[in-house]
Amino acid sequence: MQLLKDRIIKDGRVLSENILKVDSFLNHQIDVKLLNEIGKEFKKIFNDVEVTKILTAEVSGISIAVIAAQYFNVPVVFAKKTESVNLDKETYEGNVYSYTKKKQYKIRVSKNYISKDDKILILDDFLANGEAIKGLNEIITNAKATLVGTGVVIEKSYQPGKKILEDMGIEVKALASIKSMTDGNIVFCKTKK
Amino acid sequence: MQLLKDRIIKDGRVLSENILKVDSFLNHQIDVKLLNEIGKEFKKIFNDVEVTKILTAEVSGISIAVIAAQYFNVPVVFAKKTESVNLDKETYEGNVYSYTKKKQYKIRVSKNYISKDDKILILDDFLANGEAIKGLNEIITNAKATLVGTGVVIEKSYQPGKKILEDMGIEVKALASIKSMTDGNIVFCKTKK
Repeated sequence: MQLLKDRIIKDGRVLSENILKVDSFLNHQIDVKLLNEIGKEFKKIFNDVEVTKILTAEVSGISIAVIAAQYFNVPVVFAKKTESVNLDKETYEGNVYSYTKKKQYKIRVSKNYISKDDKILILDDFLANGEAIKGLNEIITNAKATLVGTGVVIEKSYQPGKKILEDMGIEVKALASIKSMTDGNIVFCKTKK
Repeated sequence: MQLLKDRIIKDGRVLSENILKVDSFLNHQIDVKLLNEIGKEFKKIFNDVEVTKILTAEVSGISIAVIAAQYFNVPVVFAKKTESVNLDKETYEGNVYSYTKKKQYKIRVSKNYISKDDKILILDDFLANGEAIKGLNEIITNAKATLVGTGVVIEKSYQPGKKILEDMGIEVKALASIKSMTDGNIVFCKTKK
């Protein structure tokens, strides 16, 4: 998605070989117009897929999922990270390892909002180590629902997640796929995703 | 907003006199169509106000803010609760007391994404004790920006927040204003907000 790649080059900040900061337009300040184009692009990619629900994880997946959901005409469910007093006791859980915090945590979806008949599209902001998507997939498996597609805005294809998920049979569609960020230079993969 | 009130009566669950659960359509599973109507309603209410940015707090304000932002044509900034490694060191802070967790925490916005020239509309899901809005207002004050309006989807007018904010000169517009939830019965305020 050229518009997105241009924006990453213009406003993304490479903090290290693995950390790309896009918080001026994607996950702290949000450019809602860009997000609309992102939503349309996901709809194009998954146009032939029957989707009953979009699943994401808090926090930074939420804005992407709700804007995209407008093009799919389906509800969004976001998995919660914390045990809220207001969250139902009956939940489907997934495990996520945080490399930044160096610990495992659980994400949860109330059993009321995902059922075995659901055909679920996972959307998220980044694919790096694949942990969030693995956790979301675990929730889908526990609910006996069906994963029908997985999309991320930005993929860092040189980090382990892409391969790990592929080995699990999960193909991730990325709107921008980064090949390397050596010395602060962002190089995109040439193959169209 | 009648559509919202009808939905609250239909799908809201009163867990106690102070806790209304709306996670089937607002803050766990999200009915994006309803959210669009909510966004339009906020635009109607704040139509005469010049807004350069919508500010909210993670987590449950995000979906509301981004959908509404489409009608205002402005970016969204959401205040973060955690000290992320990816968050800028230079931030404006606000203090929020959590009654459920019985402790104070900080919310933060990078200084890059709010400036003294910004005219800010705060949007959030609930007004109960007013803590989140107080914290967001503190961020706006610290940034020397201008608060031009405050909107919430649901206000529980019998809890202290409404009065506390009014005393600070902050008028909150609520799309549904609840007068009481005694014995599980939701009673809305009659006055149009």
